[in-house]
Amino acid sequence: MEPEDKKEISKRPASELRFDLVSKDWVVIATGRGRRPNDFVKQERVKIEVPVGECPFCNLTKQTLPVLEYKNEQGEWSVVIVPNKFPAFSPSHGLHERAVGPYSLMDGAGYHEVVITRDHNKSLAELSVEQIHRVIDAYQERYLELANEKLVNYISIFHNHGKEAGASVAHPHSQIIAIPLIDPDLHRSINGSRLFFENQGKCVHCQMLEWDLEDKQRIIYENKEFVVLVPFASRVAFETRIYPKEHHAYFERVKEQSKRQLAEALKVALSKIFKGLNDPAYNFFLHTAPSDGKDYSHYHWHFEILPKTSIWAGFELGTGIEISTVAPEEAAKYLREIKN
Amino acid sequence: MEPEDKKEISKRPASELRFDLVSKDWVVIATGRGRRPNDFVKQERVKIEVPVGECPFCNLTKQTLPVLEYKNEQGEWSVVIVPNKFPAFSPSHGLHERAVGPYSLMDGAGYHEVVITRDHNKSLAELSVEQIHRVIDAYQERYLELANEKLVNYISIFHNHGKEAGASVAHPHSQIIAIPLIDPDLHRSINGSRLFFENQGKCVHCQMLEWDLEDKQRIIYENKEFVVLVPFASRVAFETRIYPKEHHAYFERVKEQSKRQLAEALKVALSKIFKGLNDPAYNFFLHTAPSDGKDYSHYHWHFEILPKTSIWAGFELGTGIEISTVAPEEAAKYLREIKN
Repeated sequence: MEPEDKKEISKRPASELRFDLVSKDWVVIATGRGRRPNDFVKQERVKIEVPVGECPFCNLTKQTLPVLEYKNEQGEWSVVIVPNKFPAFSPSHGLHERAVGPYSLMDGAGYHEVVITRDHNKSLAELSVEQIHRVIDAYQERYLELANEKLVNYISIFHNHGKEAGASVAHPHSQIIAIPLIDPDLHRSINGSRLFFENQGKCVHCQMLEWDLEDKQRIIYENKEFVVLVPFASRVAFETRIYPKEHHAYFERVKEQSKRQLAEALKVALSKIFKGLNDPAYNFFLHTAPSDGKDYSHYHWHFEILPKTSIWAGFELGTGIEISTVAPEEAAKYLREIKN
Repeated sequence: MEPEDKKEISKRPASELRFDLVSKDWVVIATGRGRRPNDFVKQERVKIEVPVGECPFCNLTKQTLPVLEYKNEQGEWSVVIVPNKFPAFSPSHGLHERAVGPYSLMDGAGYHEVVITRDHNKSLAELSVEQIHRVIDAYQERYLELANEKLVNYISIFHNHGKEAGASVAHPHSQIIAIPLIDPDLHRSINGSRLFFENQGKCVHCQMLEWDLEDKQRIIYENKEFVVLVPFASRVAFETRIYPKEHHAYFERVKEQSKRQLAEALKVALSKIFKGLNDPAYNFFLHTAPSDGKDYSHYHWHFEILPKTSIWAGFELGTGIEISTVAPEEAAKYLREIKN
C-alpha cells in the first residue's frame, strides 16, 4: 500500500472499497451510481398519524409504573422510562441454556424499556438542547441501574425515528435493551479496538479522530468536547457519528459538565439531518464498552446515526458488504453547510 | 447445556435466543411480541408501476450487448444477462490499494450484471419450473465465466423483489456481483463450517439437515435432491432456505439433472411465499464457496430467501442481533400448508 496525498482522494474511480479500521469490514462507496446529496432531500417520509388521545405513550403512565421519571418546572413528567409492553427480552432468574438436537438456545433474559419524551409531535431533532440533555441524563441513570443486574452483559440504547426505520409508535421514544450476551459481530468490533491498541499502542478511534480533525473533510461540527463527523468507511449515505474528543471507554461515566456538550452535539447532528434531508427516517444507537465487568479501557464510546437513505438488499444481506452512494466527504460538506 | 426432548420446544418462553451453528450469531425469536403468521398476510407491497414502453429492461437489448442470451422456441430472448448500467463494481486491471492517513482503500474492481427474464409482469414465483430452470442455467453459466477472472474471489448471486427489498426496477431481475474480496462477516460464516468440520468431522449443514429432516417441524417441502426449510435460528420471520440434501460445496458444479429439481424447489418456495404472504417483497441470495481457488470442500451451498417481514432497526443495527417475531416452526407449518 502506498501512502497518497490527501488531495488525491477527489480523483476517485466510479466506486471504491473502503476499509473499516475497527470492524475490519469493507464498504463500497459507489458514487458512480450517480446519486448526489440533493437526491435524498426529495424523499418524503411515511408519517404515522396517531391522535394524542389514541397514543399509547401519551396515555401510558396512567396504567404503567415508570422505572424512571423526570419532571419539568410545571411538575409534569418530561422524560419517562417504562417497561416495553411487547418486550424482546424479559427479566428472568436464569438463562436456562438447553440443547435441541444439534441446536442450542436459551431464554431471552433481560430488560426492554422505552424512553419517552413528553411532546407527541416533536422529534428529538426539534427539542431544545436542555430537553435533549435530560434524555441523556435518563439514558445514563437507567444504564447505571441496569448494568448492576446479574444477567446483563451488554446494554443497547437506540432510537428509531420513522416507520421506515422500524418505529411502530409515532410518539418520539428511544429504547434500552439490556441483554445477557455480546453478539460475535459486535464483539469483533469491540475487539477490533483492542487489537489496534495492542498492536499500535493507541486507541483506533483516537487515531481516526486525530486525522479527521486535521483533514476536516468529514467533519460536520465540533465543540470543546465532542465532534460530529461522517466516518471514512460509511455504511450508508449520510451516516453520522458523535465522538468525545478525549478517550473515554464507558458512556455511563460521562461527566455532568460534558453532558451539556453532548446534548449540543446531538442536537446539531439530528437537526442538520432533519433540515438537510427533509426529516428522514433514521436510527441511532450508542456503542459503548460492555457492562460485563471485563476491561474495555481500549474502547471509545460514540453514537452512530444511520439515516434511512437506502435499503440493504440481496447483496448487502448476502455478503455483509454495504454500498453507500454518496461519498462521505460530500455528505459531510452538505450537512456542514446546513444551518442548524 | 442439558439435552431436551424435542417436544419441549413448544413450551417456549416469551422470547428465546437461538444460536446459529454456522455464523455463531444469536438471534431472538420473540413470539411474545404477539405476531401470528396471519398478521403478515395483510401487508400490501408497494408496487412500482412502469409501463412496458418505459421499462429499461424491456427495451434494454436494443442498446446493450448481452454477456449471455437464451432464446425461447419462438426465437425471442427468454433470459438475458447484461452489465449493470450503474455498477457498484467495474472491470479494472488492478485494485490500486492505497492509504489515506490511517485509512486504506482500493478500487471497486469487479463485475456487476443483471439477469433479466422476459416477462415484465411475472415475478420469479409466477414463472414455470422450466423457466426457472433456465434462470438457474444462466446463473451457473455466468458464474463459471466470472470465476475465471483474475481479480474475482467471490461471486454473489441475488434477487431483490419489490421496492421494500431494494428493487429499483419493477421488471423482474436478479443480479450477479463478482468482487475481489470476501467480507470478514461472510468469511466468518464460511469458516464456521470449516471449524465445525475440523472439530466434529462432519459438515455442519449436513448435521442440521439430518436433524431437521427427522424432526420435520421446520421442513416446508422436499424432493429427491433438495429440501426447503425454515432455519432453526431464523434472522427474520419466514426466512426460507433451499439446500441440496447431499453435501456439495460449489453451486457452480450442480449437475444437469439436479438443476430441474432445484428449479422445482425454488418454484415451490417462492410460490408458497407469494401466495401465503400476499406477494411480499423479499431478497434471496446464493451462499456458495468462494471462487478464490482455496479449498472449501467443508462448505454446503444453499439459497437463503428473506421475506421483508420486518425492518432492522436500532437494536439490530447496533448489536448485530436480529429479532424475528414468528417461531420458525410456526412459519414452516404455515408455509407447508399453503398450496403451491
